[in-house]
Amino acid sequence: MGSIRSLRCRECGREYEPQFRYVCEECFGPLDVTYNKELSINRHTFESREKTYWRYFELLPIADKSNIVSLNAGLTPLQNADKLGEKLGLKNLFIKNDSVNPTFSFKDRPAGVAVSRAKETKLKAVGCASTGNLAAATAAHAAKAGLPCYIFAPSDIEHVKIAQALSYGAEFVAVEGTYDDANRIASIIGDKKGIGVVNINMRPYYVEGSKTLAYEVAEQLDWRVPDSLIIPVGSGAMLNAICKGFEELHALGVIDSPKSMKVIAAQPHGCAPVVDAWKRNSDEVIPVERPETIAKSLAIGDPGDGIYVLKRLKQYNGFAEEANDQEIADGIMLLAQTEGIFTEPAGGVSVAVLRKLVEEGKIQKDERTVCYVTGNGLKATEAIIGLLPKLNAVKPDATEVAAMIRG
Amino acid sequence: MGSIRSLRCRECGREYEPQFRYVCEECFGPLDVTYNKELSINRHTFESREKTYWRYFELLPIADKSNIVSLNAGLTPLQNADKLGEKLGLKNLFIKNDSVNPTFSFKDRPAGVAVSRAKETKLKAVGCASTGNLAAATAAHAAKAGLPCYIFAPSDIEHVKIAQALSYGAEFVAVEGTYDDANRIASIIGDKKGIGVVNINMRPYYVEGSKTLAYEVAEQLDWRVPDSLIIPVGSGAMLNAICKGFEELHALGVIDSPKSMKVIAAQPHGCAPVVDAWKRNSDEVIPVERPETIAKSLAIGDPGDGIYVLKRLKQYNGFAEEANDQEIADGIMLLAQTEGIFTEPAGGVSVAVLRKLVEEGKIQKDERTVCYVTGNGLKATEAIIGLLPKLNAVKPDATEVAAMIRG
Repeated sequence: MGSIRSLRCRECGREYEPQFRYVCEECFGPLDVTYNKELSINRHTFESREKTYWRYFELLPIADKSNIVSLNAGLTPLQNADKLGEKLGLKNLFIKNDSVNPTFSFKDRPAGVAVSRAKETKLKAVGCASTGNLAAATAAHAAKAGLPCYIFAPSDIEHVKIAQALSYGAEFVAVEGTYDDANRIASIIGDKKGIGVVNINMRPYYVEGSKTLAYEVAEQLDWRVPDSLIIPVGSGAMLNAICKGFEELHALGVIDSPKSMKVIAAQPHGCAPVVDAWKRNSDEVIPVERPETIAKSLAIGDPGDGIYVLKRLKQYNGFAEEANDQEIADGIMLLAQTEGIFTEPAGGVSVAVLRKLVEEGKIQKDERTVCYVTGNGLKATEAIIGLLPKLNAVKPDATEVAAMIRG
Repeated sequence: MGSIRSLRCRECGREYEPQFRYVCEECFGPLDVTYNKELSINRHTFESREKTYWRYFELLPIADKSNIVSLNAGLTPLQNADKLGEKLGLKNLFIKNDSVNPTFSFKDRPAGVAVSRAKETKLKAVGCASTGNLAAATAAHAAKAGLPCYIFAPSDIEHVKIAQALSYGAEFVAVEGTYDDANRIASIIGDKKGIGVVNINMRPYYVEGSKTLAYEVAEQLDWRVPDSLIIPVGSGAMLNAICKGFEELHALGVIDSPKSMKVIAAQPHGCAPVVDAWKRNSDEVIPVERPETIAKSLAIGDPGDGIYVLKRLKQYNGFAEEANDQEIADGIMLLAQTEGIFTEPAGGVSVAVLRKLVEEGKIQKDERTVCYVTGNGLKATEAIIGLLPKLNAVKPDATEVAAMIRG
């Protein structure tokens, strides 16, 4: 049996049964999952299990293993980035490569956990408000679970951009309106029809999935705590979950205290409300009305967990930095050309911010640095197409071709 | 140290030093890598190692581990396909999901091995003749190795289709002509300039990489031999390598004899020269002049290893079957909607042929069946876009939306 115990309000501390609920009745604060504390697990418990994030079952909000809906996500490579490190002047750089998850982004973690919990609590359907990585991850897990899935999004999206999600059999609720309209409708319909909307009314369970990005990194570093983490920030839920993940492993006694770890938030220039607050030295995150960036998956103008990100940065010796579209595209190319990893713009943001921080001396040569790359370049090829060399045709003649070859 | 010993002609048996050579001087037969026989390895040797195909190092054609160029490819999931099995009436169906390799196809296996061997033999550059999966895999491994990479292909390819490969920094030799022209030029230039063209002059090393598709399946089945394998066939090299892989594990004593295994070749209708030969009960593979199929990665009209595939089918109780474009697209959708795996058309061919064979009673309910899915659906979204539901827009009104929701 798993160890999920309750939902607890992050603001006022009130506890609830872990059911279909996501906001505190008292103070409207967000709810977090709590777990039973008497766990007898150690490093070996995890190491000997399946090669997916479900090896950390006791730390995830599922009571019974039989309810796990698994596409074999997680335990993605922590690539020793010697080539990129050399270019930047770092000796201990690692890339956590989530572009190779089953639906090709880190969203298989939160979506997989939420869909599993939806199955466990016998919901009749699931869904999400998204057009991108989350739509694909939710739809794929719903397919494996045998649950109907509803994708709520604005109706003006390009058909090809949602093709992957629809291929899994999801139904597209194409709302004539903005993202905000689609979100609002998803929230109302989810509650009314008992649909587990993974990033809204299943959110307490959903966010827990991203903790596995900490567990895996710790395990892949032989249970050592990294010195620095570069984490792309959209809603901020992932950064918060990663911090929580390291804290939980410390509480279990399987790693040292993460208190000296440096946690860095990376955002795209066209949508950087958290960076903006950080640089103003303010606790208030001012929403960006019209995000404009090639990093669509980070274009969340009003990040739900923005203020918690600011708290985490203070707690963990961190800071926040941004990168503009050109720097993001350069970051994508740099990563591909050194490490053979092809990422979507969100990963380019991580790499671009990493580069900037090294240049500014904020990350030192010997620091054990982990840079999170959370999605797949095939999803947004248009971001780099302008940077690629033009195709210079050559006649099918060996002498002419030989002249093109260096050396 | 690794155990590579020689290159041996598959036809006349003449042996050569394992250098930059790929055709027998005596009889122009293809060369295969041979290994030293005195290996003291067992199941545990493999199980305790890195989670990539390099855990089978002694069975791969590299002498020194320090020459390995790894992007952490391999050890991809063998997904227990209970949902697809249920649909088809199979109780022990597994999908080997290579869509989640680092460059998103099985080609990371042969390309990674060939690039590593190129590094080991101190070649100054690598390359390949390809526009698709192989181009990406070769370019990415070359980037990690720090070697220049040349992609030889016809100049009329769409820019976006080669964007991934070019993002890794490869140079595109855009030959004004056909695929045959590009191949011929690659072959001449490779030999003349000492470029390791992975699928031409590095071919003996290259094909060895695909053996890991057998090793991993055996290990993931707890070292049991599957009853049936469905393998997509382009050149035929992969099917041949998979058979060789099972034979080698048997020779090492880590699995039982694979002699009762059923090996099934799957091809697209528009390019099915091996299926055609099989159905004519002929040993002669007649080239297809103009392949026409949505399964571009299998559109090899004159398969180099076609005759060896026919031998393997006879040896392993097998047969060959084809699927047309509609069946392929249906296969892609069926796999996505049951197992949450989004594949390119080659994977759709495997699933479509599997379905056909079950319907014909050629695969039985209890057989331990492994279906190989070798590439990623994001690379060929156009194959299914016509099958997706149209987007029916709805006003942002909760009552209207609620009426769309079933149940």
